[in-house]
Amino acid sequence: MIVSPQTHRFTEPLSLQSGAVLSAYELMYETYGMLNAQRSNAVLICHALNASHHVAGVQVDTQGRAIPRSEGWWDNMIGPGKPLDTNRFFVIGVNNLGSCFGSSGPTHVNPATGETWGADFPVVTVEDWVNAQARLLDVLGIQQLAAVMGGSLGGMQTLSWTLQYPDRVRHAVVVASAPNLTAENIAFNEVARRAIVTDPDFHGGYYLRHGAIPKRGLRIARMIGHITYLSDDVMNDKFGRHLKPLAAQVAHAAALVAEEGDASAGVPAGRAYQYTTQGVEFQIESYLRHQGDKFAEYFDANTYLLITRALDYFDPARQHGGNLSLALAAAKASFLVISFTTDWRFSPARSREIVRGLLQNRRDVSYAEIDAPHGHDAFLLDDPRYLQAVRAYFDHKVSI
Amino acid sequence: MIVSPQTHRFTEPLSLQSGAVLSAYELMYETYGMLNAQRSNAVLICHALNASHHVAGVQVDTQGRAIPRSEGWWDNMIGPGKPLDTNRFFVIGVNNLGSCFGSSGPTHVNPATGETWGADFPVVTVEDWVNAQARLLDVLGIQQLAAVMGGSLGGMQTLSWTLQYPDRVRHAVVVASAPNLTAENIAFNEVARRAIVTDPDFHGGYYLRHGAIPKRGLRIARMIGHITYLSDDVMNDKFGRHLKPLAAQVAHAAALVAEEGDASAGVPAGRAYQYTTQGVEFQIESYLRHQGDKFAEYFDANTYLLITRALDYFDPARQHGGNLSLALAAAKASFLVISFTTDWRFSPARSREIVRGLLQNRRDVSYAEIDAPHGHDAFLLDDPRYLQAVRAYFDHKVSI
Repeated sequence: MIVSPQTHRFTEPLSLQSGAVLSAYELMYETYGMLNAQRSNAVLICHALNASHHVAGVQVDTQGRAIPRSEGWWDNMIGPGKPLDTNRFFVIGVNNLGSCFGSSGPTHVNPATGETWGADFPVVTVEDWVNAQARLLDVLGIQQLAAVMGGSLGGMQTLSWTLQYPDRVRHAVVVASAPNLTAENIAFNEVARRAIVTDPDFHGGYYLRHGAIPKRGLRIARMIGHITYLSDDVMNDKFGRHLKPLAAQVAHAAALVAEEGDASAGVPAGRAYQYTTQGVEFQIESYLRHQGDKFAEYFDANTYLLITRALDYFDPARQHGGNLSLALAAAKASFLVISFTTDWRFSPARSREIVRGLLQNRRDVSYAEIDAPHGHDAFLLDDPRYLQAVRAYFDHKVSI
Repeated sequence: MIVSPQTHRFTEPLSLQSGAVLSAYELMYETYGMLNAQRSNAVLICHALNASHHVAGVQVDTQGRAIPRSEGWWDNMIGPGKPLDTNRFFVIGVNNLGSCFGSSGPTHVNPATGETWGADFPVVTVEDWVNAQARLLDVLGIQQLAAVMGGSLGGMQTLSWTLQYPDRVRHAVVVASAPNLTAENIAFNEVARRAIVTDPDFHGGYYLRHGAIPKRGLRIARMIGHITYLSDDVMNDKFGRHLKPLAAQVAHAAALVAEEGDASAGVPAGRAYQYTTQGVEFQIESYLRHQGDKFAEYFDANTYLLITRALDYFDPARQHGGNLSLALAAAKASFLVISFTTDWRFSPARSREIVRGLLQNRRDVSYAEIDAPHGHDAFLLDDPRYLQAVRAYFDHKVSI
């Protein structure tokens, strides 16, 4: 499935929860499959922290050749014959406001000043994103979604859709999410933000004007994030206390592979400690540094602040004295809620709070708690029971 | 109990596990209670990451006045009539090599160069610390300890004592500890270290020569640490999603208290979000920033690297092909092992590994798993069941 993004420019001002107003803005999006004549088969996908509108399919270069490893972030879930089947559904991926992947955000020019927004881009919330997404549906001529679906922060948007636009959503698929962040969740976000904001290259958020990028802070933020995405168990399985092979050992192993064709032949099982405080000793360190380095090359620091704040602020029960059941009374959709046993960032207990709140309102809810070892990351991975739960829901529950 | 530290200078070289040799070094220590005539009532206390030789009692200023809030870090545990009763035992607190609280470390002068050690201070391990502590006991004329005791990293030293000097330890009290770090533990240490090392004020570890201190990195390191010391539950109880009162609200509350004498009268239950990405919104953020700021004022960055590396490297089973039972075969002491249910840094499962390994060697082991809400920090707090377990052990099991 070859896909390419589109952009729509909105000129009607958007009032944000903070009180700020975006006078004009662009949303970048992709669509997969065909909208049917009744316009009743549309499914909106909401993305999480560092994802984008590019949900499924592969992208092509200027010569029309498929770009290697350009699959969308939920390509295992969405496409022809996949659990969310684009032969039947018209699927929309949209990049959120404040992002750095195409929609209006801090790296864009503020039309009022002619300078890049930087730290002046207004704070955006889950509710603001949903309002902007609803306007995109208006443009696409879609009055009601067959379903809205998302994982993690995307699950929060999904939940918010059912509360902000109850008549526009028939089904909601909320994966690995929570009705709000715990103190510990906020704490991890705050440490990541402090790493970015106190990086001398941050310049109060106006780094682009200074020709700088706060890469040190971004690296630390991403490393912290990665720890919370994985389970303790999967980290032990994948990395344990294994030492990083030394360069000489890697070269030796490569030589043996070249010679003997056996990839496992030359890799040493262990080695002596190097006794280093600043160097890499363990494989987990090497992995985290690599993830941090990659992230700092492509992600925008102000976007990181904005998106983690959207996570912090989301709390539909807040206006109802903390009573989630009261907050969820507005929802009319049917729900599929999914959690993963080893997800300690958004634990199954948090998903069960959503389920309980919906049941107290006699909503139609299916709940799957998937026994998966991968922690929060499981929502992006190929767990067969998980994919089957989504497939069965769309096949049997979601009519078009 | 008024206490003051002493220093001993060792001139016999100390060979370290890394192969490096410390030609001369100082250890700072305190003692509480009296060594009996048989020299059989000594208990050594091993400290964790950011603690010191100042374990119990209060310090006095130059005029001999008690300094407010100068109690030792385990003052609730150790003193006259306390669980480890200094009316009966002679207790020794010693600051470890590489620390920044008095014993030789990176902020001291390297006698070979006349400059501060900085990043050149050699990597020290749990085993090295135990060897240095054993030499201090030689100086004090103590051949055998009634007990050695420590929490967290201090528990690792305690365990190592029973393996390195099995004939010099009759009892070992290992609290909230582990036989080694998991991949996740190492990961958190590594992120903290990267925050320090990539701080432009770190200067490769020679910041003192540059008149700089990598405070940004130290703040981030401490914030990460604090998250892992607390349980999710206690964070929710203590901070939840509470917003930080605004300065105007604090002033208003203070005025009401002054007027009405009711401390709870003026504190607003809630307020509107401020919608800030760089400012403080939630109380947990304010708490973490405060902890980070305090820590950066007094802790040495190279010491942080050294001590977290000592944690990473500790793994007595490593020399035995990962078999902890084989590693623990050397121990002769009797053990009290204590863990806390909500400690996710060093979980009860890790303490049970130690207990199982000892039982496989038919060692005498008592194990207490304390149902406490406070996470890893519980080992420093006043949980009555915990304090009673230690008291009962010293009263009834430890003869002198």
